[in-house]
Amino acid sequence: MNVAIIVAAGRGSRAGGARAKQFREISGIPIIIHTLARFELCETVGGSVVVLPEGEREEFLSLAETHGLRKVSRAVGGGATRAESVWRGLRSLEASGAGVVAVHDGVRPFVTPAEIDRTVRAAEESGAAILAAPAVETVKEVEDGRVVRTPERARLWLAQTPQCFRYELLRSAYEQPGALGADVTDCSALVERLGHAVRVVEGGAHNVKITTPRDFALAEVLLKSRQ
Amino acid sequence: MNVAIIVAAGRGSRAGGARAKQFREISGIPIIIHTLARFELCETVGGSVVVLPEGEREEFLSLAETHGLRKVSRAVGGGATRAESVWRGLRSLEASGAGVVAVHDGVRPFVTPAEIDRTVRAAEESGAAILAAPAVETVKEVEDGRVVRTPERARLWLAQTPQCFRYELLRSAYEQPGALGADVTDCSALVERLGHAVRVVEGGAHNVKITTPRDFALAEVLLKSRQ
Repeated sequence: MNVAIIVAAGRGSRAGGARAKQFREISGIPIIIHTLARFELCETVGGSVVVLPEGEREEFLSLAETHGLRKVSRAVGGGATRAESVWRGLRSLEASGAGVVAVHDGVRPFVTPAEIDRTVRAAEESGAAILAAPAVETVKEVEDGRVVRTPERARLWLAQTPQCFRYELLRSAYEQPGALGADVTDCSALVERLGHAVRVVEGGAHNVKITTPRDFALAEVLLKSRQ
Repeated sequence: MNVAIIVAAGRGSRAGGARAKQFREISGIPIIIHTLARFELCETVGGSVVVLPEGEREEFLSLAETHGLRKVSRAVGGGATRAESVWRGLRSLEASGAGVVAVHDGVRPFVTPAEIDRTVRAAEESGAAILAAPAVETVKEVEDGRVVRTPERARLWLAQTPQCFRYELLRSAYEQPGALGADVTDCSALVERLGHAVRVVEGGAHNVKITTPRDFALAEVLLKSRQ
């Protein structure tokens, strides 16, 4: 069975508000529930592990039950960095015989079930695949406040999630020295470091990560435009 | 005197709607007017050249008058590419004794007057400066559908506008072979090609480029949150 690891362990000060942002509501429903509802509707993922701040697990499980989520298998406590939270989710899958693991940000509620399925299937075929969107803005590499390089925009993609990998491959990636550091921005970078090819599945700009107060306002707009 | 070149020559099919997007309204006012109003409020720019689709110039000038814009010096017809439009704006400044030229996208109405001033002043000092925001997402370099590199995110910035340069420097940049091609995504890239250092002035994520129908919805939200 393929399994999702939903990373929602952040305490999210940038979003403003007292509550961790993954529990804040959009149109009356907590973001993390919007996100999990996407996985309920996809075909390729059978279960999920949700990684949460310590102390939030019980409340979350009752919330998941209230919303009738059938694919939530367990909730585990997160670590100090995103990478450590992913690692804890991975360890909780030991001996579960997981096929492909789909790592997804808890605060990306607008991914579509079809995008999840396409990315998981690409990983079933090749071992590693991530959802990403072509860069729209010009990106600059900057050193000491000066531009040092403008990489050709046509080659640049913005990584999103899910990022999907065969379980054993992702395990090996996270067992590398330095894998749990704060500078590790995504799973793919660790798999790339192993020398394994990572395929890119085209997603869209709608799959935003909700981070700032403005993102919440945008999320309300996006949600209404879908309804 | 420092001058802005406001690039608004696109016909903007991606935004949907029959009207070129720079003339579509947010809260009842055309985007291009919102943008020019920012330049009215800044201290460092005294005049502006607006580059428009051929055939839109008269209507625009009467619109600018209606809205009481004092700094609009002239309207010129644009070219087939963004670079060609900038070039036409530049040529219209010949013999005007322009100091720093601030090139700005007509569909970035949320730049603040202070951001414009900071970028122009940096260009007065060093010859070349652009407004940019630190990258929030992980960027991948992709070839044939596979990730080939993950540049270190801490070094990456997303280029915005204004991009500000001493007039003579920008002129030389646009006189290089290939400068008017469709693959030239920003002025800075051409100045970098000359070997001139380009300084980066920190902007924020609010300075979006309005491109898609969703961007319009976002723009309404941003505008309300400012009021």
